[in-house]
Amino acid sequence: MAREKPSLQQPMFERIALIGLGLMGSSISLGVRKHKLAGHIAGHARSADTRAIVEELGLVDSVHACAAEAVKDADLVVLCAPVGVLGEITQSISGHLKNGSIVTDVGSVKASIIRDVAPHIPDGVHFIPGHPIAGTEQSGPRSGFADLFENRWCILTPQSDDPTAVEKLTAFWTALGSNVEVMDAEHHDLTLAITSHIPHLIAYNIVGTAADLETVTQSEVIKYSAGGFRDFTRIAASDPVMWRDVFLNNKDAVLEILGRFTEDLSALQRAIRWGDGKALFDLFERTREIRRQIIDAGQETPDPDFGRHKSDGD
Amino acid sequence: MAREKPSLQQPMFERIALIGLGLMGSSISLGVRKHKLAGHIAGHARSADTRAIVEELGLVDSVHACAAEAVKDADLVVLCAPVGVLGEITQSISGHLKNGSIVTDVGSVKASIIRDVAPHIPDGVHFIPGHPIAGTEQSGPRSGFADLFENRWCILTPQSDDPTAVEKLTAFWTALGSNVEVMDAEHHDLTLAITSHIPHLIAYNIVGTAADLETVTQSEVIKYSAGGFRDFTRIAASDPVMWRDVFLNNKDAVLEILGRFTEDLSALQRAIRWGDGKALFDLFERTREIRRQIIDAGQETPDPDFGRHKSDGD
Repeated sequence: MAREKPSLQQPMFERIALIGLGLMGSSISLGVRKHKLAGHIAGHARSADTRAIVEELGLVDSVHACAAEAVKDADLVVLCAPVGVLGEITQSISGHLKNGSIVTDVGSVKASIIRDVAPHIPDGVHFIPGHPIAGTEQSGPRSGFADLFENRWCILTPQSDDPTAVEKLTAFWTALGSNVEVMDAEHHDLTLAITSHIPHLIAYNIVGTAADLETVTQSEVIKYSAGGFRDFTRIAASDPVMWRDVFLNNKDAVLEILGRFTEDLSALQRAIRWGDGKALFDLFERTREIRRQIIDAGQETPDPDFGRHKSDGD
Repeated sequence: MAREKPSLQQPMFERIALIGLGLMGSSISLGVRKHKLAGHIAGHARSADTRAIVEELGLVDSVHACAAEAVKDADLVVLCAPVGVLGEITQSISGHLKNGSIVTDVGSVKASIIRDVAPHIPDGVHFIPGHPIAGTEQSGPRSGFADLFENRWCILTPQSDDPTAVEKLTAFWTALGSNVEVMDAEHHDLTLAITSHIPHLIAYNIVGTAADLETVTQSEVIKYSAGGFRDFTRIAASDPVMWRDVFLNNKDAVLEILGRFTEDLSALQRAIRWGDGKALFDLFERTREIRRQIIDAGQETPDPDFGRHKSDGD
């Protein structure tokens, strides 16, 4: 398919609207600027404090208290607010979306977002939910950085059957440094339940358990956290609202994987109780191999002085 | 108490023997050299391959196939082998330990080591079990580095009532950069169960669960591991023999804390099933505070470009 080569003056999108300006929204804005992907970046944040910080940092070209105003004339609308409010937001912008525009999001669950958002997408607007598998435990507009999506995967679960729109959004994420994969929403939710949601849940859980012990003081837990616990606290410092919404909106997949996890943990508990060293060794040997594959796949940057900054194994 | 000031020529110990030359033994050797704490470092490794690497790297001053030979004339003997073999090793060196010398170890459990090792310590030798809360997921003689113990805690659980010996070992760890704390072995084992052993157990467990799913392929798990899972695989890449021995030798404390963990996880599971957003939010908010305290306590080095190297939150 022959396509026009864009002139040097012409960015990928005339106008991009970012609805929500936390870690994700601010990182997209910085990435879009770095790679010159938009003529104008409009941003909306519900909180006046956030809008003030965004103005101060000059994060976007125009800041709007009203989401409907931000999306006016936008070719690409990226919903970057917590999963739980996306339906309501889409309803409020619905009548203001440009014909032929693309609406996407960055939410960590997909089926529930489609359930909440799709009914409010007008005909002629392409709804292509997305999920960049990238982030940090930081949140808010000050935490963004342009390279957040470099060498990360972005999953799209298109609800539009317009191949041009999907290609355009794919090109957008590719320009931000990501590899794009298309899959259905249900499979996304199950995959992320194991690679992201359950890891967060058990990290939150163990930090809670540690805080509530009477036999070991909280100051001891903090003092000796370098033995492994510390790494869990980093994950358990992630945004509470975002993660509450993830668990409320990916209930079935999370409960299914959690069932497997606790079943396996019971077997491990039994192996410890009965002194079954072979069962323990076999598992510990097997899990090592998966680590090697993640490093081989380039999903972990080997850190030159990792011994200092990273976890202390025992 | 007035003490002689050591001359510049006189190191803290005439001869140190390191029994086992993996991550811990090699790091101690490099640290001892860096800070000039010994006149001679003798090393023992059971495996001929390890001894060959140690010779090649010049990690110690003399390499011994026989542990009894290594400890001859040593003022300080550091047992750096896996917890499960320390009793047997101590039996083999027992008759060769110098009168007035100090025997210590670096094992991650303490009560079982005291049970296994203490009976073989002759009168006139000071047994002061120790545990530096430091390490990485790497193992073997090539993984050591001199600064491993810098700004980390080292716990001593003395079995000798000679204050001079305890002071001397405290000075040794302080010279390697550590802060030293004295506590009883049972409290150590319970504290480490929550700050280290259970975190490792659940990391091993979730990596095993992920590997065994039929609905999500292993290549998908690896591809999308940046969502949180990746960080668990690093911990689950720790040495399998060492960790098998930890769980076999700290059974009671591990099972006790694990009981708390699964109880709390059941409550969380129930909150998800019933859509109790407030319970989820309250926990996620509370765990964030503990993270802040760990950073304040200097037990995590804030990484200038952490967004790139560290975990991706969602």
